[in-house]
Amino acid sequence: MQFLLSSELIDQIKALINVKDDKGLQELLHDVHHADIAEILDEVNGDEATYLVRLLDSEQTSEAIMELDEDVREKLLDQLTPLEIAGEIEEMDTDDAVDMIAELDDDIQRAVIDQIEDEEHKADIREMLQYDENSAGGLMAKELVRVKETWTVAGCVREMRRQAEEVTRVHSVYVVNKNDELIGRLSLKDLLTSTTTTKISEIYIPKVDFVNVNDPAEDVAKLMQKYDLEAVPVVDENKRLLGRITIDDIVDFIKDEADKDYQMAAGISQDVDTEDSILTLTRARLPWLFLGLLGGVGAAAIMGGFEEVLQNHVILLLFTPLIAAMAGNVGVQSSAIIVQGLANDDVKGSIGNRLLKEMLLAMLNGAALAIVLFFFVWVSEGAVNYAASISISLFVVIIVAGIIGTFIPLFLHKRGIDPAIATGPFITTSNDIFGILIYLYIAKLILGI
Amino acid sequence: MQFLLSSELIDQIKALINVKDDKGLQELLHDVHHADIAEILDEVNGDEATYLVRLLDSEQTSEAIMELDEDVREKLLDQLTPLEIAGEIEEMDTDDAVDMIAELDDDIQRAVIDQIEDEEHKADIREMLQYDENSAGGLMAKELVRVKETWTVAGCVREMRRQAEEVTRVHSVYVVNKNDELIGRLSLKDLLTSTTTTKISEIYIPKVDFVNVNDPAEDVAKLMQKYDLEAVPVVDENKRLLGRITIDDIVDFIKDEADKDYQMAAGISQDVDTEDSILTLTRARLPWLFLGLLGGVGAAAIMGGFEEVLQNHVILLLFTPLIAAMAGNVGVQSSAIIVQGLANDDVKGSIGNRLLKEMLLAMLNGAALAIVLFFFVWVSEGAVNYAASISISLFVVIIVAGIIGTFIPLFLHKRGIDPAIATGPFITTSNDIFGILIYLYIAKLILGI
Repeated sequence: MQFLLSSELIDQIKALINVKDDKGLQELLHDVHHADIAEILDEVNGDEATYLVRLLDSEQTSEAIMELDEDVREKLLDQLTPLEIAGEIEEMDTDDAVDMIAELDDDIQRAVIDQIEDEEHKADIREMLQYDENSAGGLMAKELVRVKETWTVAGCVREMRRQAEEVTRVHSVYVVNKNDELIGRLSLKDLLTSTTTTKISEIYIPKVDFVNVNDPAEDVAKLMQKYDLEAVPVVDENKRLLGRITIDDIVDFIKDEADKDYQMAAGISQDVDTEDSILTLTRARLPWLFLGLLGGVGAAAIMGGFEEVLQNHVILLLFTPLIAAMAGNVGVQSSAIIVQGLANDDVKGSIGNRLLKEMLLAMLNGAALAIVLFFFVWVSEGAVNYAASISISLFVVIIVAGIIGTFIPLFLHKRGIDPAIATGPFITTSNDIFGILIYLYIAKLILGI
Repeated sequence: MQFLLSSELIDQIKALINVKDDKGLQELLHDVHHADIAEILDEVNGDEATYLVRLLDSEQTSEAIMELDEDVREKLLDQLTPLEIAGEIEEMDTDDAVDMIAELDDDIQRAVIDQIEDEEHKADIREMLQYDENSAGGLMAKELVRVKETWTVAGCVREMRRQAEEVTRVHSVYVVNKNDELIGRLSLKDLLTSTTTTKISEIYIPKVDFVNVNDPAEDVAKLMQKYDLEAVPVVDENKRLLGRITIDDIVDFIKDEADKDYQMAAGISQDVDTEDSILTLTRARLPWLFLGLLGGVGAAAIMGGFEEVLQNHVILLLFTPLIAAMAGNVGVQSSAIIVQGLANDDVKGSIGNRLLKEMLLAMLNGAALAIVLFFFVWVSEGAVNYAASISISLFVVIIVAGIIGTFIPLFLHKRGIDPAIATGPFITTSNDIFGILIYLYIAKLILGI
């Protein structure tokens, strides 16, 4: 059922643009979904994309533009005049309109807003530009169906028909009192089953979930997920109904957050994807690699301090990469579980309890791994004292790595910093250094050198 | 606006259970959302949870049970008789009912299904148990509003009222022909604005997205995300309407998939969370750590082969952890980008092109890092030949690591294996070994030893 963008279609479109066959293009793309138009805009070159946006109906292109990656959209908008951009914005829901305007430079922003004809739309956009992007206000749209408690079912249906023209999908009908304060919602089922003269105040449901316009977007996502809400109304401090947030925006938000955390854990610091340029990818990757380099140089310095020991006990040096790798692996595991738990509001109990649990876990894992390593070194090298010192070090290093991996994200979270930054290269690098230091120190101690 | 589960409330509930104050419990929990009931069931002990499930209305508890973690639910269901479980299932939508039944042992499954009174529900569940869990059939529910094209608007509204009683939320009204084949959908807007004698065939929208019952769940998620669908009808080979999938199930699916990929990248092989027991966590973490141990032992063996070189050129050994760590970091970065790109259907072009791009990227990053390392080693150790051999090795190792990190997930994906398995410890470990091997080999070559 999915639309498949063939290279034949792209070639056909390019050819039509080349000969400026506007009618042919319009016919060809008339029935195409905006998400597919977006894919087409992404595949053709910049001039061709501009041509298509100018040619096709804004109703179709405005939503397609919102589906594009930010960098592609930026290039496209650069080619359009403020009047043309305003034309696209007239067709957008307020939430999309504001997202797009927020991406423009300040002076272009003003020029574009000035060109918007619909005064109500303009005022809504100006209001919404004030909200933080990562708050409920930044996610909401002004488009919704609102009815007054004093209306009858007949009046309500009449009003709904009018309002519904502007609202893509009627999720819920919100009921307000004379001060425009949210007091409840109306189920379509009740509306269908009530006589036309019934007052709304008699049939509305007073129990309604809502969020405050300043609530963090993350909390909104959690609330909607937990209660399986498909739309949630947004109110101000006085409970006045300002807008609503729909589940499709939350789906995008959840996906983006998950992608960001995943990339952070892999040591990629910006929102990039495989199709980005090598330079963009380098900017996202190189800083973390420098951190790793710094860690490696630190490890070298530490090992340099034990140079004599290592030279006389070569067997110890053979196992430094093993110790460093295990410290990194355990640290990443512990931190990932905590970061994910924090994201899902799943982490209960005190930091102390959490560290204790991780310590027990690390002791269990560490003991199993240390015993295996002990026998391996003993059998292969035939030196029980080396086997003992290497495996005991591994045991201690695993415990310390687990504790660091648990503590750092919890600490960052407590300080209001996104704990996801602690996963990946950061934990690996610091655990490499700690691991090697502990290893050499313990080995020296046990071997009495 | 979110319900906050206080320890006072839990204590109060436990006290009421203790004195068997059923009326008090019912009053206290009467208005509580099923998602919050689930949190309560999670906090009290097993016997208390069983007590609550027996006491409270199945309408409330059935949905709460579905919100529980699988292991908590399993323990709870163990306490209930097949008849009691069937009572909960009567209240569930078919999709939840099937998910829960699928978790039971075979003989209990049969006993429970036999106890379901509603014959239609029973038949639906039996039918749905045949679909693969990760297919559209496994996600869909049978509950939907379907109207025939031959009906009038008035008849349609009458039928909708009846059907809507069984359907929690009316997303869309699907129109079928006399063979029960999906031919379109009905917008509530059109229904509100049409006269009662209008035929459905005159007002329905023939353009409707749908999925086949055997389509993979992943494809359904992508389709619904791309086209911002809130519900999608499911049909069989003959286009007969079987059920529908709603966006809230897809939200859960997306979240689960993201969590799984994240954990895989961190070397955690089962779906665990912070609250799981130490034993469960160990089972999820230890296998990957053993893999790391194996890798470390491999690295030790390789270094053992170069023992003489290392003994005479101690400076080389100081940088083995750096080389290993950088190989791991680059490998994780490359593989993460590819895995995410594959998950988002974002990877275009051939494997060859992809590898070429990664190679160029790795050369750029590698050169920058190698130059920095060269000057550092030169200045700090004063030996230009060591500085050259170490930094040139780093350059080569980074390129190889990037290529391995790109190639393995692409290769696994081509072979139909989930590429996410290639991220994390797997890539880190293999790149550690390759990195050290390449490093020592090149150093030996350059230093002529």
